[in-house]
Amino acid sequence: MPLGEFDVIARYFTHSTTRGDVLLGVGDDAALLMPPPGQALVAATDTLVEGRHFLPGTPAAAVGHQALAVNLSDLAAMGADAAWALLSLSLPEVDEPWLDAFAQGLHALAERHGVALVGGDTVSGPRVVTIEVLGFVPPELALRRGGARPGDLLFVSGWPGEAAMGLELLRSGRLPFTADDHCVRRFLYAEPRLALGQALRGRATAAMDVSDGLLGDLAKLARASNAGATVDLARLPVSPALVSHVDRARCERYVLNGGDDYELLFTLPPQLATQADAIAAAAGCVVHCIGEITTGSGVRCERDGRVESIEEAGFDHFAR
Amino acid sequence: MPLGEFDVIARYFTHSTTRGDVLLGVGDDAALLMPPPGQALVAATDTLVEGRHFLPGTPAAAVGHQALAVNLSDLAAMGADAAWALLSLSLPEVDEPWLDAFAQGLHALAERHGVALVGGDTVSGPRVVTIEVLGFVPPELALRRGGARPGDLLFVSGWPGEAAMGLELLRSGRLPFTADDHCVRRFLYAEPRLALGQALRGRATAAMDVSDGLLGDLAKLARASNAGATVDLARLPVSPALVSHVDRARCERYVLNGGDDYELLFTLPPQLATQADAIAAAAGCVVHCIGEITTGSGVRCERDGRVESIEEAGFDHFAR
Repeated sequence: MPLGEFDVIARYFTHSTTRGDVLLGVGDDAALLMPPPGQALVAATDTLVEGRHFLPGTPAAAVGHQALAVNLSDLAAMGADAAWALLSLSLPEVDEPWLDAFAQGLHALAERHGVALVGGDTVSGPRVVTIEVLGFVPPELALRRGGARPGDLLFVSGWPGEAAMGLELLRSGRLPFTADDHCVRRFLYAEPRLALGQALRGRATAAMDVSDGLLGDLAKLARASNAGATVDLARLPVSPALVSHVDRARCERYVLNGGDDYELLFTLPPQLATQADAIAAAAGCVVHCIGEITTGSGVRCERDGRVESIEEAGFDHFAR
Repeated sequence: MPLGEFDVIARYFTHSTTRGDVLLGVGDDAALLMPPPGQALVAATDTLVEGRHFLPGTPAAAVGHQALAVNLSDLAAMGADAAWALLSLSLPEVDEPWLDAFAQGLHALAERHGVALVGGDTVSGPRVVTIEVLGFVPPELALRRGGARPGDLLFVSGWPGEAAMGLELLRSGRLPFTADDHCVRRFLYAEPRLALGQALRGRATAAMDVSDGLLGDLAKLARASNAGATVDLARLPVSPALVSHVDRARCERYVLNGGDDYELLFTLPPQLATQADAIAAAAGCVVHCIGEITTGSGVRCERDGRVESIEEAGFDHFAR
């Protein structure tokens, strides 16, 4: 006999938590949570639709991981500590092995970041996963998109483009989901940059996460800051893993326009720029200076001092 | 040219709010919110899937209303004040008249309850709406499911069964969505019982909202309270609107097993029972005493002192 809705919640999503701020978790009409005094609550939500945000056949553990990771990445971009999550899961049927792996992928990431799953909803329908995350940040230290000033230096964490390469390898059928390939793993199991976001509190003048492609997201940051930006193409981080799959020119397109990076794009005032590597190292990642914020508006790409035209192709869910 | 994802958010879901506790709303990676000191945060999420939770062809304003109403009903069941909401909207295409009406239905209800829409996600996919709501309650006054004690009297607000009747009239094609019919309107535009929930703080020993059918939901309340419950069938509230559509015996089935009521089911200690009508009147609704909490377990229906067997058919999303 198949499990019912309430059995699914009880079996897969009712974990005990060591967080003392969860007064009441899964099982009542709503969760009861105690936010720490004086902190701002940071709230974000993101949805994954099968066939759109994840390929049919994607391992359920990766779907569970991604659904939480994309949300935690939004908290990272605000400089927040992650605390609680709610899950809404629409599934065509109760597939216990799928649910088991999904829950494992989700819980493993949640545990690494001290996140408690405190509520949710399970319904029958197309395979759609929505997660809402809640975290905290001292309000005056929150990282926003709109604070960059001309002269600030522009940084990106990690190796953008690898995830898009991983997606391409899977979508084209060149590699299976189980492939022992760095780019495939980066796509399936992106690691949200929470430690870096927290380390940038009070230092970065602006920050956002790169989810829809570096150039397109940079254009949003520049617009929010009423400024322009210049990217120095010679300084783009092109990872060895990317180079192993395609030539240098195509690598740059992946770095500039690939989606699903979940890296942080941020700006530092010039006097803090020399600290960037140390800040990143303490947060367990690398960062790359790729340009600067300018007066004016729009994003300009340069190589060796000359402007180069790059088609911006940020990810728009209703456009592709 | 169709609107893109970011245009949709800007045009339909970026409303200004008068809430001073919204430091940053739609438009950054996440919302920044200031919870009031000393209060517990109350968090809930619910999803509506087209064809499952709302019929194809349902007016978009009703979908927008329902998506928020079912969530606010969860806050009402905790005795909470509603504050903020996040919206995740998956739609097959950008249909501007649909979006416009959806946003109007959602915002109208949000404004009535002082709720600010502070964030969300818009994706392309099947028509699925997920909302997360956040509110507050003094932690010691929160209404839980598990506090009912033998001897407590059992109440339900409003007229359960009307919404299920409305759904049946629409599903069978006997009435159109635009019908001037009380049950149809009750189904399409349920009014969450926030004022009643708040009035029950510190008075009700247990509470939950009735969304999956009165008997099934009562069984959950009794189980959470480690108690049993008796329903006096002669005291069931059967509304004139229900009687106008079906005979008395079928009316009772709607009242006991119909879903989508979004009324509150709650228990009061005997010494407070005489205050129930006044509490409800001050909160703008009526309540009905329909039975009591007992020792033992399970739900028993009686009429004139004799046990009557009623098939429990609560709503389980994976069972029907």
